[in-house]
Amino acid sequence: VPSLDERRPPRKRDDEVVAAAAKVFYERGYADATVQGVADELGILKGSLYHYIDTKEDLLFRLFEKVHEDVEGIMGQVSSAEGLDPLQRVGLYIRLQVMHNLNDLERISIYYHELDRLGADRRASIVAWRRVHEKFVSGLIQEAQEAGLASRAADATVLSNCVFATIIWPYRWYRAGADGDAASVADACVAYVLRGIAGGAS
Amino acid sequence: VPSLDERRPPRKRDDEVVAAAAKVFYERGYADATVQGVADELGILKGSLYHYIDTKEDLLFRLFEKVHEDVEGIMGQVSSAEGLDPLQRVGLYIRLQVMHNLNDLERISIYYHELDRLGADRRASIVAWRRVHEKFVSGLIQEAQEAGLASRAADATVLSNCVFATIIWPYRWYRAGADGDAASVADACVAYVLRGIAGGAS
Repeated sequence: VPSLDERRPPRKRDDEVVAAAAKVFYERGYADATVQGVADELGILKGSLYHYIDTKEDLLFRLFEKVHEDVEGIMGQVSSAEGLDPLQRVGLYIRLQVMHNLNDLERISIYYHELDRLGADRRASIVAWRRVHEKFVSGLIQEAQEAGLASRAADATVLSNCVFATIIWPYRWYRAGADGDAASVADACVAYVLRGIAGGAS
Repeated sequence: VPSLDERRPPRKRDDEVVAAAAKVFYERGYADATVQGVADELGILKGSLYHYIDTKEDLLFRLFEKVHEDVEGIMGQVSSAEGLDPLQRVGLYIRLQVMHNLNDLERISIYYHELDRLGADRRASIVAWRRVHEKFVSGLIQEAQEAGLASRAADATVLSNCVFATIIWPYRWYRAGADGDAASVADACVAYVLRGIAGGAS
């Protein structure tokens, strides 16, 4: 049996499959959604979808992987941006991350609510990956603290959890159209976070 | 048929019932939990529990009501505290709210995840209540803005959502024992929020 990786469809198709799965899981709830429903959303036969996956859980796991690929892209951009001090780097990260989340509310909603649906091994791999992400953010904050640009009064881990809160929460309240465009929400979040971690710097 | 209100048990018993429901719903998941399980947790017969409620959903709704009663207590304390400027009032609110949430992670977890299990009318009443709570917080922030103590650059609604994020998120990452005591997490959140909304004040 080929692994999921070997059977992965071409990138564009893969994006479409995950987008369709996100939409169907979001609308019907993961528990009630079916592979047939995702195939219908894609306008293909269920058999064609089973060419890539064996189970509904495979679709869910691919959605999680896709979120991680995107966040890795963001972390890469932030790490390689030139001419930024550590605090500006935090700002760039928040902006990219909030914009990304607001532009894909359905997928992010699944990502934060359906972890328990994955089998133990996959769940463990997601949790391990989240640790890497958390370390990246707390690392940025620590650099800012060491450069005297962020408050040293609070622990970098607590601060980075406060930062995660600010990034993640918008998916719970933001409604496109009613709450302004994603860019201005992102700007407000960047300003809030930068003030939140910066004040009291020596 | 007497209403739920008329059948409400004495306060202490009511607290115990909700605490037991929170524990059982949290551990087994609401969908899999049973009224029998809650009765077992209380060490009483299922029939005694049915004296107060008709359905599992009644238990869930009572849990939601209890959260609201507690938050109303916090809002009352914040409103009636004397000698505080609007920004200090925000600080007091955050501190009380974070402490409260960290001391009752199971109940808060249910509160944020199981709203969809309630029937339409009850769900609507919870959503309406949440609006009152949001208005309270955005009102405090607006007062701080008008007093020149908080940034006017961002909309009070976006800022209050950032504040809610900081208050609510700890239930997703805080583990008692491993992450310091609730009071120091609350202090860090207060400092983060106050800096986050205050900076840039005229």
